[in-house]
Amino acid sequence: MQIDTLLTNAHVLTMDPEFHQYRPGAIAINESRILAVGEQKALEKEFTSRECIDCNGKVVMPGLVNTHTHVPMSLMRGLADDLRLDVWLNGYIWPVEREYATPEFVRLGTKISCAEMIRSGVTCFADMYFYESEVAQATAEAGMRALCSQSILKFPTPDARDYEEALEKTREFIKKWKGHPLIVPSIAPHSVYTTTPDILKRCAEMAIEFDIPLHTHISETALEVENMRNDTGMPVVPYVKKQGLLEAKVLAAHCVHIDEGEMRTLVHANAGIAHNPSSNLKLASGIAPVWKMLELGANVGIGTDGPASNNDLDMFEEIRLAAFLAKGASGDPTTLPAQQAIEMATRMGAEAMHMGDITGSLETGKAADLILVDLTPLHNSPNFERDPNGTYAQLVYATHGSDVSDVMVNGQWLMREHKLTTLDESDLLAQAAVYAKQIDAFLLVRERSLLSKLVAISSTTEEESFEIQSKVPIEDFTPVLAALKKPSVKILRERHYHQFDTYFEFEDNSEGRIRYREDHFIEPDGSTSNVRSRLTLIGQARERSFPHEVILSRSRYLAPATQSLRFFREYFKPTGITEIEKDRLRFLIEYKDTEFFVNLDEVINPKLGKFLEIKSKTWSLSDADHKAHLTAELIAFLGVTTGNAVPEDYIEVARKA
Amino acid sequence: MQIDTLLTNAHVLTMDPEFHQYRPGAIAINESRILAVGEQKALEKEFTSRECIDCNGKVVMPGLVNTHTHVPMSLMRGLADDLRLDVWLNGYIWPVEREYATPEFVRLGTKISCAEMIRSGVTCFADMYFYESEVAQATAEAGMRALCSQSILKFPTPDARDYEEALEKTREFIKKWKGHPLIVPSIAPHSVYTTTPDILKRCAEMAIEFDIPLHTHISETALEVENMRNDTGMPVVPYVKKQGLLEAKVLAAHCVHIDEGEMRTLVHANAGIAHNPSSNLKLASGIAPVWKMLELGANVGIGTDGPASNNDLDMFEEIRLAAFLAKGASGDPTTLPAQQAIEMATRMGAEAMHMGDITGSLETGKAADLILVDLTPLHNSPNFERDPNGTYAQLVYATHGSDVSDVMVNGQWLMREHKLTTLDESDLLAQAAVYAKQIDAFLLVRERSLLSKLVAISSTTEEESFEIQSKVPIEDFTPVLAALKKPSVKILRERHYHQFDTYFEFEDNSEGRIRYREDHFIEPDGSTSNVRSRLTLIGQARERSFPHEVILSRSRYLAPATQSLRFFREYFKPTGITEIEKDRLRFLIEYKDTEFFVNLDEVINPKLGKFLEIKSKTWSLSDADHKAHLTAELIAFLGVTTGNAVPEDYIEVARKA
Repeated sequence: MQIDTLLTNAHVLTMDPEFHQYRPGAIAINESRILAVGEQKALEKEFTSRECIDCNGKVVMPGLVNTHTHVPMSLMRGLADDLRLDVWLNGYIWPVEREYATPEFVRLGTKISCAEMIRSGVTCFADMYFYESEVAQATAEAGMRALCSQSILKFPTPDARDYEEALEKTREFIKKWKGHPLIVPSIAPHSVYTTTPDILKRCAEMAIEFDIPLHTHISETALEVENMRNDTGMPVVPYVKKQGLLEAKVLAAHCVHIDEGEMRTLVHANAGIAHNPSSNLKLASGIAPVWKMLELGANVGIGTDGPASNNDLDMFEEIRLAAFLAKGASGDPTTLPAQQAIEMATRMGAEAMHMGDITGSLETGKAADLILVDLTPLHNSPNFERDPNGTYAQLVYATHGSDVSDVMVNGQWLMREHKLTTLDESDLLAQAAVYAKQIDAFLLVRERSLLSKLVAISSTTEEESFEIQSKVPIEDFTPVLAALKKPSVKILRERHYHQFDTYFEFEDNSEGRIRYREDHFIEPDGSTSNVRSRLTLIGQARERSFPHEVILSRSRYLAPATQSLRFFREYFKPTGITEIEKDRLRFLIEYKDTEFFVNLDEVINPKLGKFLEIKSKTWSLSDADHKAHLTAELIAFLGVTTGNAVPEDYIEVARKA
Repeated sequence: MQIDTLLTNAHVLTMDPEFHQYRPGAIAINESRILAVGEQKALEKEFTSRECIDCNGKVVMPGLVNTHTHVPMSLMRGLADDLRLDVWLNGYIWPVEREYATPEFVRLGTKISCAEMIRSGVTCFADMYFYESEVAQATAEAGMRALCSQSILKFPTPDARDYEEALEKTREFIKKWKGHPLIVPSIAPHSVYTTTPDILKRCAEMAIEFDIPLHTHISETALEVENMRNDTGMPVVPYVKKQGLLEAKVLAAHCVHIDEGEMRTLVHANAGIAHNPSSNLKLASGIAPVWKMLELGANVGIGTDGPASNNDLDMFEEIRLAAFLAKGASGDPTTLPAQQAIEMATRMGAEAMHMGDITGSLETGKAADLILVDLTPLHNSPNFERDPNGTYAQLVYATHGSDVSDVMVNGQWLMREHKLTTLDESDLLAQAAVYAKQIDAFLLVRERSLLSKLVAISSTTEEESFEIQSKVPIEDFTPVLAALKKPSVKILRERHYHQFDTYFEFEDNSEGRIRYREDHFIEPDGSTSNVRSRLTLIGQARERSFPHEVILSRSRYLAPATQSLRFFREYFKPTGITEIEKDRLRFLIEYKDTEFFVNLDEVINPKLGKFLEIKSKTWSLSDADHKAHLTAELIAFLGVTTGNAVPEDYIEVARKA
């Protein structure tokens, strides 16, 4: 029979369920598929091929399957390390994503990751990010196979203002990519702590509707589980089961902190598990007890997680670490032996991704996704041959990613003798360098010593916010209150409170100032129902100006102020302290489909008088532009002249007064 | 000033105590030493050089210091993996060492390890093995720097019949190498469980006498500590302190299971610690709490351990793992940040080896031991530059050993642009392949399914023994008992017991047979004082024959037989069972400076009569030769004619009878 390609003189590790090996072995490939795998002599008799490749005795095995990553994040590799997860996310990753994660960024980051993965023998990966259609596009162009999972979060994301929009876009994404020869689209409710029960339900429904996998993070940290237990009385797996998530074909990343009952639930639901040993150590999440999951019959794959928390995509390193950690943590060196580690990184990984029928082993009918590995370099010598298991041990304990010489996906060569065929690495690197320079400059402005000092004592998540704001002195609140009752305004919430602000100022005011605020909630009868205190680092008043004295301001809400004002004064040693007391009527309204805060403030100390203040949170520059325009319009609508607007905080107004 | 070499256009990480960096920086080198390190402009003004090397912006840093390894073991890499430590040592490593560890083997293994280490940026290592003078010779020829530690054990070793001989040879070794520009000789009492208090004391004395480091394994496994506590009531560090060990300049490898008190003791004694994360995981020893040791001020270096238990010598992998594990195990991602990890792998490692005055950082006066590292490959891109700590993070979290392009030791280039200058890798690999083939064949004979089956149920250490033995039927014990009283024989021990042996035989007798033995100890009054049972796998009766029907036999003592005879019968399903009952008078004697067991046996069931049996343990062929000769002589001396000797076990005698 005439075929496209015959690989001969190979040491074939099929990774089929019986772990057949052929040496010398051969593989017959036609178009994108494997026609036959077996002893060389038998295949040479059966097939003639247009291309016959002598593998020089190298190992030929299924390409490695990276079961969990975030490929565009290669552009944030090395951005910041050795940090607490909350500081890393809030201080670095999320601000950079908000500013830079565009379709172009996503495509570039994907291609860089693809190049790195091809070089180290990965042929298939499970991704989860934003603009996932761009990830799919770039991956398909690189010729790799992937499960591309569009993230859904309850927060605004770089690619969606809210989760309704995200779900809608995901539906389009799935329709576009379903049936593609390389890409399997999937939906990714990010995690329990970044979604709502409604999101989880609707994601599961969509996954079932399209019969696609659902990719999510499960029990990555002990904190996640603790919070879930406090909130719902159950750990994470039963909770997601309750939302119907396990009805879908789930790929659960991490599972560091799940108990045996949860493992059984996942096995019963045929959910795949992605084990990410490097990332779990680097972020101090812990060591997932995968050896127990494997004993219970779970499909556990191995993943690198994103290159910003690893910091590479080297599956050989990850396989080795998976085997090492299982031994070290179980106290038994026979735990997770080499053959099983390779199984996790190939066939079982593909099964965990619900793609086991397509890839993961060298078997007739599966796609021709394979790699050639040279086990003869000095760091992997000598070669003992008496034990067929020795080859798996060599692959796990001494092979480097760079020992992979050739990579084929779906019958197409992506690397031949260490040369990539589909990607231009130097071009990708040049583009990445431009981003790195911009991001460095962006972060340099943000990284202030005052911030570090604050972060050091903050007990909870830092949360940055950008706000469009405008402030106009007025004589009387009555006309504004009347205008707020007009039908084109919808009042969503209304509160009355008395605010005592203490500002700490510093010699170098480029670092901004810290505000200690006490909010006294005033009930309709005039009584105080509640007091809360919090710390905020407020940047330069004006990040950017728009017409009509509308400005973009930035502040970082650091933490509930659990210490006394006196403590903070001593800790920060400000060079100046200013106090401002005011009475505030606060309205959350909707105007032209956009949410605004309308504050009617009377500054009592110092006596500055009355002000109308309009604020709206924003996450992107184009959105800020749009809201600045609407703000000016809203002020006019409320019957106030923008001509008098003050582009400053009360503290500046006070200083001038 | 005119000098030999000026490195320019470098990103210099000095790793000096203040962590100075220069970018663009330069390094002035004359002969073997660093003359100056600093800003490029300043150095270019000060020096003119015969060789000026443009480093193209690469990182130039001190070479990595591998603080614990066994370099000749590269020839046993991948020999056997995923095994219990006892099985791995007793079943594979020790038998192969006994058979193959010759000076030639040691030199070849050393050179292969040197090649691998140079390629991945190691310039200095701490070794511990046998024939250490050969290790030193091969290392010096490769141009690397090393602390070469001659092992001392209480057992016979490949290079010494006993520890007296080992100590004597070590003294010669130290005298030969002390003062060498690349080699620091050292003495290595292997561990507490393989030495005696006398060995520890005498090693410490010798180390102090010559002012050289003392290298040992401390608290590698929980079992070692448990045994030490059971035997002495104290953990390992106080015990070695009691033997005076900490008076020497100690390098303590592993320290996985030491408590805070022991850490403080080591710090107080200025002992260095070698942390071996890969090996400790792979052998399931555990995770050493190095972050606590560092907090207490210990000098903790990083080591790969031997390439047979890692299975490579890649320090970049080891550094990354050290940083990862400290975070994962402490639960804090800020633990062991990248800069500190690199410090451990350079200056602090050299200090732990008591070689901090020579190497470990780029400082004026230290040896020119340095490496060039390319941080621009795709797997390490992009490069963020705003944070000087980012470079350390890149080195720890994303650099591969293969990113090292150039290596200099003591002013000599050992690698230039990825080409080794002192070693011929293909020649080394060809030689290694010959050994691998021989060792494979040797082990194939040993690896029998019966053994695997036995190992699976054995609860304690398997212990192989080779014995020279001869057996002669005699009429009467009286003349022999009389001869044993002659002055040329010294009786060291004497016992009387009644033995019940049950032999399990199998269809394929090439696997040997299993003996279940009950020893009933008989007191002088005829009462039975104690009974012990044990299992032994006995190989082919005759491993080798010598004149006068003296033979070399091999048996593996597997375990105390904690199960019933019935259990073993059902478990092994032997095809034949033979029982032999005998009465034995057993003498341990010394004859011509050699120990022999003299057994006066009366085989009661079946009735085979009386026998004189002579046995002596042996560990090498030349020793076996010598003892075979003495055995024949001893039989004659005891007044027995060797002409009737039976070169068989009792079971064969019984079968013939």
